[in-house]
Amino acid sequence: MKYGYGVDLGGTTVKMGLFTGEGQLLDKWEIDTDTSAGGRNIPSDIGRSILADMKKHSFAAEDYLGVGIGVPGQVWPDGTADAVNLGWRKLPLISELEAVTGLRAVGDNDANTAAMGEYWQGGGKGYKSLVLVTLGTGVGGGIIIDGKCLQGAHRAGGEIGHIPVDPTETRICGCGNRGCLEQYASATGCARIAVETLSATDAPSTLRSSRKVDARAVWDAVKAGDKVALEIADKFCDYLGQGLAIVANTVDPDVLVIGGGVSRAGQVLIDITAEKYRVHAFNACKDTPIVLAALGNDAGMYGCVANLL
Amino acid sequence: MKYGYGVDLGGTTVKMGLFTGEGQLLDKWEIDTDTSAGGRNIPSDIGRSILADMKKHSFAAEDYLGVGIGVPGQVWPDGTADAVNLGWRKLPLISELEAVTGLRAVGDNDANTAAMGEYWQGGGKGYKSLVLVTLGTGVGGGIIIDGKCLQGAHRAGGEIGHIPVDPTETRICGCGNRGCLEQYASATGCARIAVETLSATDAPSTLRSSRKVDARAVWDAVKAGDKVALEIADKFCDYLGQGLAIVANTVDPDVLVIGGGVSRAGQVLIDITAEKYRVHAFNACKDTPIVLAALGNDAGMYGCVANLL
Repeated sequence: MKYGYGVDLGGTTVKMGLFTGEGQLLDKWEIDTDTSAGGRNIPSDIGRSILADMKKHSFAAEDYLGVGIGVPGQVWPDGTADAVNLGWRKLPLISELEAVTGLRAVGDNDANTAAMGEYWQGGGKGYKSLVLVTLGTGVGGGIIIDGKCLQGAHRAGGEIGHIPVDPTETRICGCGNRGCLEQYASATGCARIAVETLSATDAPSTLRSSRKVDARAVWDAVKAGDKVALEIADKFCDYLGQGLAIVANTVDPDVLVIGGGVSRAGQVLIDITAEKYRVHAFNACKDTPIVLAALGNDAGMYGCVANLL
Repeated sequence: MKYGYGVDLGGTTVKMGLFTGEGQLLDKWEIDTDTSAGGRNIPSDIGRSILADMKKHSFAAEDYLGVGIGVPGQVWPDGTADAVNLGWRKLPLISELEAVTGLRAVGDNDANTAAMGEYWQGGGKGYKSLVLVTLGTGVGGGIIIDGKCLQGAHRAGGEIGHIPVDPTETRICGCGNRGCLEQYASATGCARIAVETLSATDAPSTLRSSRKVDARAVWDAVKAGDKVALEIADKFCDYLGQGLAIVANTVDPDVLVIGGGVSRAGQVLIDITAEKYRVHAFNACKDTPIVLAALGNDAGMYGCVANLL
């Protein structure tokens, strides 16, 4: 039996897990992310936390696969990492992790490790290729083909959130362009579609008395059968279905996996999206399964360990 | 020195070439495509033509890399091929080619072999990944990443022509969907944009006296400085730029290569498209080079030989 550590580095906490090489999560814990001093204490904090865990077990050095880490930025082939929100610029992440733990370390972008996790042990388990689309504040993505992450020439492989889907959009996206998928198919986009739809009709809706009209309130109302909420969901899922069709017509994966906070809406989101997807997708891809991500916030940790195999 | 045959099978002619393994085209010729009898004579016709060529040379059996073929359809892992326009359904293409020639044979879809050709010796030579977009009657494409063609789970990898780009479209595409890139960025789409633009304005244009307002006439008028033609080109290239941005944000290739009949318009098409592309593309990909395909109608033959390496 081999063992590996998966480390999902976020802006406020670091999620860490000990896994078997077969994909079983044995233990997980979190430490705070120390963003002081340009984030330069983070690698040693993580390394010492792993070292402390290693002391709890009596595994031999050769039993360890190593440490995999996912970062909110880029890990370059030379082992240095950039992460704007942490203050990292060419920080020697991999060598520091290896020096502190004595283990081999590998790193990747966190959207890619999440996709790899869902591919290895989650919604995409058993498929040869997948696209993971995460619906959160923004829309992220990762593409896995034959077990390898599609990084792209500029590390922009799977930047699905910024696919231009509506040439008529006048509002500007966070990226500076207009009409990006993220402007519609994110939690933020869902809330905006909700506000616009509610103000365009006089139809009664439980959403009108909601304290906050956010994606969660919309999908709760959808499940309760609220007609205006269904109309909002219809628009939201049509954009998402178009985005998925675009990705499917380009890379044609075996499965499309939907994750992120908005995916907590569950199967109803998948059902409406699948119906819209079929309208937009090329014939050969119309039956590509669309499934929910299965690993939640642990996906990244799983993917980090998959990257050690 | 090793030698390989590249065979680009079309609906009316078969283009055949003898290449060195280093990518030099030594000789090329064509034979007719015999679509009678469900196309079942095609493999032996090709095989015998290759055999006749082999007799002209005194290469040893081990000097041959084999025969690569590109077909307007699919070649499956078991060596059988489907091609609706030829009447093929599970035709044992590869075994028949091997039986007649005594050489190893490999096959792939013709859009993929064209992409592989441009990757090996054409517009994408020297890059690690590329997307080829061919602008003809329709819009086709092929994606090469690290020297491998992205086939897709349903052989729909690179089906760029059927990416949905305009959710407001009411006309139906040949595929049955609405708003596909092919409805705008093809020769057919260019002609339609031309007719619509000319009828929406009273501005003078040399196109008004053209015998036929097709893509060629439009681009000839663009080069002559015709203002309405420039407006048409602007709309055409905006759709194409959006399509390229979608593909770049998804697979992020090192280079975007434009081929097909419409690309004969030349550098002016690239220049206007690149400007539009920058508007739609994600920041990291804005500088991805866009270049003309370099091998013309020979691209497929080149790619077939690349598939033997």
